[in-house]
Amino acid sequence: MSKKPLILVTNDDGVTAKGINNLIEVAQKYGDVVVVAPDKPQSAMGHAITINSILHVKEISTHENVRTLSTSGTPVDCVKLAVNELLDVKPDLVVSGINHGSNASINVIYSGTMSAAVEAAIEGIPAVGFSLLDYAHDADFEASKHFADLIIPHVLEKGIPTGVCLNVNIPKLPVSEIKGMKVCHQANANWEEKFDKRTNPHGQNYYWLTGDFVNYEVGNDTDLWALDHGYVSIVPTQFDMTSHASIESMNKLFTNVGKR
Amino acid sequence: MSKKPLILVTNDDGVTAKGINNLIEVAQKYGDVVVVAPDKPQSAMGHAITINSILHVKEISTHENVRTLSTSGTPVDCVKLAVNELLDVKPDLVVSGINHGSNASINVIYSGTMSAAVEAAIEGIPAVGFSLLDYAHDADFEASKHFADLIIPHVLEKGIPTGVCLNVNIPKLPVSEIKGMKVCHQANANWEEKFDKRTNPHGQNYYWLTGDFVNYEVGNDTDLWALDHGYVSIVPTQFDMTSHASIESMNKLFTNVGKR
Repeated sequence: MSKKPLILVTNDDGVTAKGINNLIEVAQKYGDVVVVAPDKPQSAMGHAITINSILHVKEISTHENVRTLSTSGTPVDCVKLAVNELLDVKPDLVVSGINHGSNASINVIYSGTMSAAVEAAIEGIPAVGFSLLDYAHDADFEASKHFADLIIPHVLEKGIPTGVCLNVNIPKLPVSEIKGMKVCHQANANWEEKFDKRTNPHGQNYYWLTGDFVNYEVGNDTDLWALDHGYVSIVPTQFDMTSHASIESMNKLFTNVGKR
Repeated sequence: MSKKPLILVTNDDGVTAKGINNLIEVAQKYGDVVVVAPDKPQSAMGHAITINSILHVKEISTHENVRTLSTSGTPVDCVKLAVNELLDVKPDLVVSGINHGSNASINVIYSGTMSAAVEAAIEGIPAVGFSLLDYAHDADFEASKHFADLIIPHVLEKGIPTGVCLNVNIPKLPVSEIKGMKVCHQANANWEEKFDKRTNPHGQNYYWLTGDFVNYEVGNDTDLWALDHGYVSIVPTQFDMTSHASIESMNKLFTNVGKR
């Protein structure tokens, strides 16, 4: 029996995307690889799961020595299906991506790529989401592969804290111009949405979501700073959404409210 | 001109659900109410947004003196549409729910109801998500209304910290049996998924996601403890997913990795 680690690969751009193919190639160097990924693009699906309809799974052929399963579900569905139904043993590592486009800062919360990694963390499995700051379907993943090739064996060997996954973003630069990796926190930035209102041929209005990304944080310890300054950003990411800093003030706020 | 606060009401069970109708009734007591909610159930949509297709908005009639807009989007889309396109002024408060079913503990991350509240927090608007521990479509919302009636005016008057929203869950009990409200943190609990594998009339396999909820935390400061002991749980919730506790250890982990 093989003693190689079992690595589950998923993404949100769909199983045929260039990014996941690059990630599979790196993962294969360090373990037995199983791919369970969406059969279609599932970007911006956040932590959505499929509870009111059914899920399909289809085995397809993508890489030699890799079992690839394409599902009708979201990225989080893919992780749940893999871990709880499709795989015989728990993976040693889940890697998600390489996403076509940034998942830095607030994008982590909208991202299917990162939600898959967060779901793995919920299931107690070390996980890393990789994203390249280039939305193009034919983006150049060489630098991303270089850093995945450093991070994957390191995480397999050293581990990361239970319940934490890593949000890794790679700037759109050649490897030679990337200064290194920086551990940092999620920048306080946001999309200022603009809806593009149009009229269809039947005279009805509809909307496209668009927007500008605005960074409200100036410090040098954020993922946006790192990426802007030529570093790969690594944000340890968790699923506890409690604002622990507000517990005390909220306790005070609700003292005696509604007391009889 | 009215000086009443503007309250945006949304949910994930759809604009016709009993829960949102109850929430609208309470909100109307404290402000001018605009409803922007999904035209169909959007449970478990997490923080999904619609970026690869279009959004429709339709004005419908639900309550006297209430402008109600039904959209084809997710709960997060509804908040984005309302704040950035449909409303002339920023709401003073966003309330989401009342959800038919618990959003305590890890459910916060899958919940459309709570993702709408989190999105409002991202946009800098005070927000509260309400959920009743009863999935029935004809659930009894009397106790939920009682507590919404305490919490809404209190939050409007006193405010909550910027970037924080409240995850309020109400036990399935009559008001007289509820002991009060408890500020607490998200319990470390999880779904142990079981997939129900079936075969369709054409001989193809498909899956239904099911599972058992398991609480790993025994302390009396969690939302699950509060609900189990007859309290309404209030968890201050944030959108920063950084594991700040892991920054130092991750810094150590990645020191010298890939240094040339």
